[in-house]
Formats: sequence, structure tokens, C-alpha cells
Amino acid sequence: MRGDKPRIAVLLGDPSGIGPEVAGKVLAMPETLQRASVLVIGDTKVCRTAADAGIEFLACRAPGCPVGSVSAEAGAYTIGTLRVAVESLRSGRVDGVVYAPLNKQAMKVAGLGFDDELHFFASLLGHTGVVSEINVCGGLWTSRVTSHVALRDVARLITREKIRDAAGLLHRTLVAAGVAAPRIAVAGFNPHAGEGGLMGTEELDTIGPAVEELRAAGVDAIGPLPADTLFVAARRGDFHGVVTMYHDQGQIAMKLLGFERGVTVAGGLPAVITTPAHGTAYDIVGRGVADPGAMREAFRLACKMACEMA
Amino acid sequence: MRGDKPRIAVLLGDPSGIGPEVAGKVLAMPETLQRASVLVIGDTKVCRTAADAGIEFLACRAPGCPVGSVSAEAGAYTIGTLRVAVESLRSGRVDGVVYAPLNKQAMKVAGLGFDDELHFFASLLGHTGVVSEINVCGGLWTSRVTSHVALRDVARLITREKIRDAAGLLHRTLVAAGVAAPRIAVAGFNPHAGEGGLMGTEELDTIGPAVEELRAAGVDAIGPLPADTLFVAARRGDFHGVVTMYHDQGQIAMKLLGFERGVTVAGGLPAVITTPAHGTAYDIVGRGVADPGAMREAFRLACKMACEMA
Repeated sequence: MRGDKPRIAVLLGDPSGIGPEVAGKVLAMPETLQRASVLVIGDTKVCRTAADAGIEFLACRAPGCPVGSVSAEAGAYTIGTLRVAVESLRSGRVDGVVYAPLNKQAMKVAGLGFDDELHFFASLLGHTGVVSEINVCGGLWTSRVTSHVALRDVARLITREKIRDAAGLLHRTLVAAGVAAPRIAVAGFNPHAGEGGLMGTEELDTIGPAVEELRAAGVDAIGPLPADTLFVAARRGDFHGVVTMYHDQGQIAMKLLGFERGVTVAGGLPAVITTPAHGTAYDIVGRGVADPGAMREAFRLACKMACEMA
Repeated sequence: MRGDKPRIAVLLGDPSGIGPEVAGKVLAMPETLQRASVLVIGDTKVCRTAADAGIEFLACRAPGCPVGSVSAEAGAYTIGTLRVAVESLRSGRVDGVVYAPLNKQAMKVAGLGFDDELHFFASLLGHTGVVSEINVCGGLWTSRVTSHVALRDVARLITREKIRDAAGLLHRTLVAAGVAAPRIAVAGFNPHAGEGGLMGTEELDTIGPAVEELRAAGVDAIGPLPADTLFVAARRGDFHGVVTMYHDQGQIAMKLLGFERGVTVAGGLPAVITTPAHGTAYDIVGRGVADPGAMREAFRLACKMACEMA
């Protein structure tokens, strides 16, 4: 960080989706340039308002992409902007990156050889440690032990090591975001967290011991807690973060807690990278009705984390 | 039903818990006797206010039970009141039953030889069909294909037949509650409802075919839908009911959607029986702070269903 404000790169996301619209709306907000020095990585054509406002652009020419559908052209363009963004982080030109929604399918069609953009970032940054997306919603942060896998496989995939990884990554990210002493709840896997082994043993065999190891390592972890009441307590503010065992355990709660403002943080990377939790919303492209709320939250969070890291 | 009002039996629940308090608070509300003719099945000592108000009592003597803890005495008393209540339903003395929170452990210690009170009711009523609890919260009704079982076992327990049973029971209960044409969403099992088989096949093999069979049988079922976005749509009012595959899938959502007003309906029985979704809350007994909101909702719902059945 140079001067009193972080330098944040803003990417317009998939040009066929609502990314340019929500990014443009956030760039037009007075608070945006008060919070950060902004470098837009994208095509001035795609985001005319911001260009007119005199915000600095690092131009990437957007090809003639279809509107509201998946294309290799849009995917290739998106991949290109992500490369430029990570290069800007590596070179120290910016302190953080916020990207508007991507389309994974488009990037796959364009030949992205990674499971997701997070592993693409890790590769570009030469990072080999654990990475995982962290979902942030209304002050609550969650990480997952398993994610996009069949639920029938989850019981054998949750290990003490993976639970420690997910909790440790969440702990470090919360500290990086300015929470000095994060309180982290670890969800159980079974109904009522197994009720002492009556309904499943993962809590006794795996999750409980992992929580003990975390506490021994200085992480303020509590659990395993029954997943259904856990999120009521989390909403009340009892915890800063929640470690979930499987995708829907966290996502059912987070979407009810205000998905329209949800942010995804690239957890584990030695860099500040955030994005709105919602997708490209192809069905409403070009109508001007896209809600920039989550993009604004993603931008604010990147600014905050970049300041904390400075 | 005789006259213009349903006749509702009110039970005080476990005498060691907050049941008598929340029942007493509801009995003291002016709306209560406007909605129904009330028969309290319980000890006048336990619920002095209602007795003073001149509400009819069917006295069951409560033994000297401990306050705020499990005992066989309290369990035996509770079982006795449930027997009297079901007998009153059978004899036509009342049109519906509302019971304040029970304690399963106390009833088990007292020798209740059933998994739960629902199967006890079924036995007393001589009912041999499918029964299952239905959770109601803020106008949304849910039933479950599996409930208190280890999550690792759920994948092999969800069958087309069980899904049809849970959805059919929900459909019939909604109709009985006055919803002429219930729209019912059926949740998927895997993240993103399996995304076409990429993350699990239960949707393709089991849930999808069950939904087709339900539609062919005249149930307005839709699914399998991704569980995380489903409840956002349900909260918006897109569905009357949701069929969930496992305990926490529904409970995480329902507790966030307002557990303090949640009601449990005995689904599948040829009788109207409701209860608050919360428990005996032993920790706050005797302090006068118990919220009667869910008990009131349970009472209102029993009145409504009894009227519809008339």
C-alpha cells in the first residue's frame, strides 16, 4: 500500500453477464474512490461510465461476446483479465483484487485447466499450500471441509487434517481481515451432532479430536455443534466464523442470511482477492436491474483486508 | 365439531418444563376462547391461572415432579395425559389436540415403548399407515424422507417409495389445513442437486423419478431442486411445502426462518394433533420468561385444521 489508501484492481468479470453492470455501478459510487485508488482491468467499451469518470484503466480488449450466454470468447477474455490482475498483484502495482462474477463454464470451454479460478490464482502465484473459498455474509465467515462432491462420499472425506486445514485457513483469514481473536464454531456432521454417537460417530471419531487439536494449536475453536442451532447462534453474533463439513450445510444458511450481499474470499492465498458470491445472472443482462450490493461488499472487504495487510 | 367453534384439548406437557407456563399464557389470551371451546387435560395445580379463568379441566393429578430436570414421575404423568387426550379424540369429545413440550427422555424412563409420541399416538388410534412429523414455520411446511439417522446412511435410505410417502403425507396434510392446491418442492440431496450427475446420482436415480411419479399421481411436486436456493424461494412464497432428504437440510433453514414460532404437526394420523417445535427448556423453568409464541401458533393451527376437517 502506498499513501493512505489501498490500490485495488477491479475486474469486470464475464463480459456476457451482469459483471460489467455491477462493477460499473460500484465504480460510479462516490465511496469507491474515497476508499481506494482504483485500477480497472477491462475494456473501456464494456464499462463506459467508469472510463468517463476518469478512473484508471488497464485496457483488455473484449471480443464480440454474446450477451447472456456461455462462449469461449468470453471465457478467454475473462482468463486474460485474471492473468493481468494476478500479475499486477505480483508486481506490487495493486494491493488487492476484486472481480465481478465469472462463468466457470465459459472459462472451461476456453481451456482453463484448473478446477476453479482459485487454483488458477494459486498456480499463477506459485502458491502450493491449502486454498479454499471462504464465504462471507453479514459479518459471518464460513469455510468448508468438503465442497463440490457427492454427499454420500462426505463421511469418508472428512478427516482431522482437513478439518484442521479448513479451520486454520478461516482463522488466518479472519486475523488478516482485522479480527484479532476469532471465535470459530465447528459444525457437526450428523443430526444433533450425533447425540453422543446415537446417530453417527464422525463427531466422536474425527471432528471432536480435530477441535481439540485446533485448541491445542491456539485456535479458539468450539464444537462439534449441531448444525441447525449453530447458525441461529452465529446470526446472533456468537462466532466470527463457522467451519462446515459439506456444501449445503453452510450454503442453506448463508443464502438465507442474505445471499444478495454475500462475498467470496480466496482463502489461503498470500494475496487479497474477493468476488461477489452470486453468478453472472445471464437472464437479466442488459436490463439495468442487477443489484450491485454484493460487488460493493466485495470491494469494501478487499479494501479492508488490503489495509490490514499493509 | 359442534356449534361454530372447534373443541380443542390443551395439554400442559412435561410438568418439569416450561409447558405449563406457555400453555397457561396461551389459555389466558382472549383470542383463545374466541377461537375454540377448550378442554385442558392436566392438573389444575400446575396451571392455576386457567383454572381460575373457568376453563374446563379434565383433571390429571401431577405428582411431585422435580423442576427443570428429567424424571420418571414427570414422564409417567405426561404419558397419562396423552392417553386421555387421544381417548378424547376417539370418543369425539374434542376435535383436535395441542400439547405443550414433552420430554422424550422422561417418557422413555417412564417406560414408553415407542420411538416417539407420534408412534404412540398411531398405536392408540389403531393407525397403521405412514406417520411423520411435519414442521411448520411462517407458513412453510416441511416433511422429511429421513430424520434421526446417521448422515452417512442417508444415501441408501432415500428410496422412491419413501420420497412419495413424505411428499404424499405433506400434500394431504396441507389439503387438510385448507390449502386447496399445494405446491410442493422436493429438495435434491447433493450440492447443486447433483448438477446433472457430476456430484452424486441420487437425483437422477431416485429423486427425479419419484417426483415424476408424484406428478403422475396428481401431486403438484417440483424438483429435485438445489437445497440452498430452494429455501430462499420458499421464504418468498414460491411453495407451500418442502420435502427434505435429511434432518439438517430442513432444520438449518427452519430454525433460521423463525424457530421461536415453529410448530410440529403429527402428519399422517386421522386426527388433528399439534405441538410447539421447541423443547421443555429446563434451564428457564419457573422464571416466567418462556415465550408462548409457538404454543399460540400450535393452538391456532389446531383450530384451523379442526375447522377444515369439520
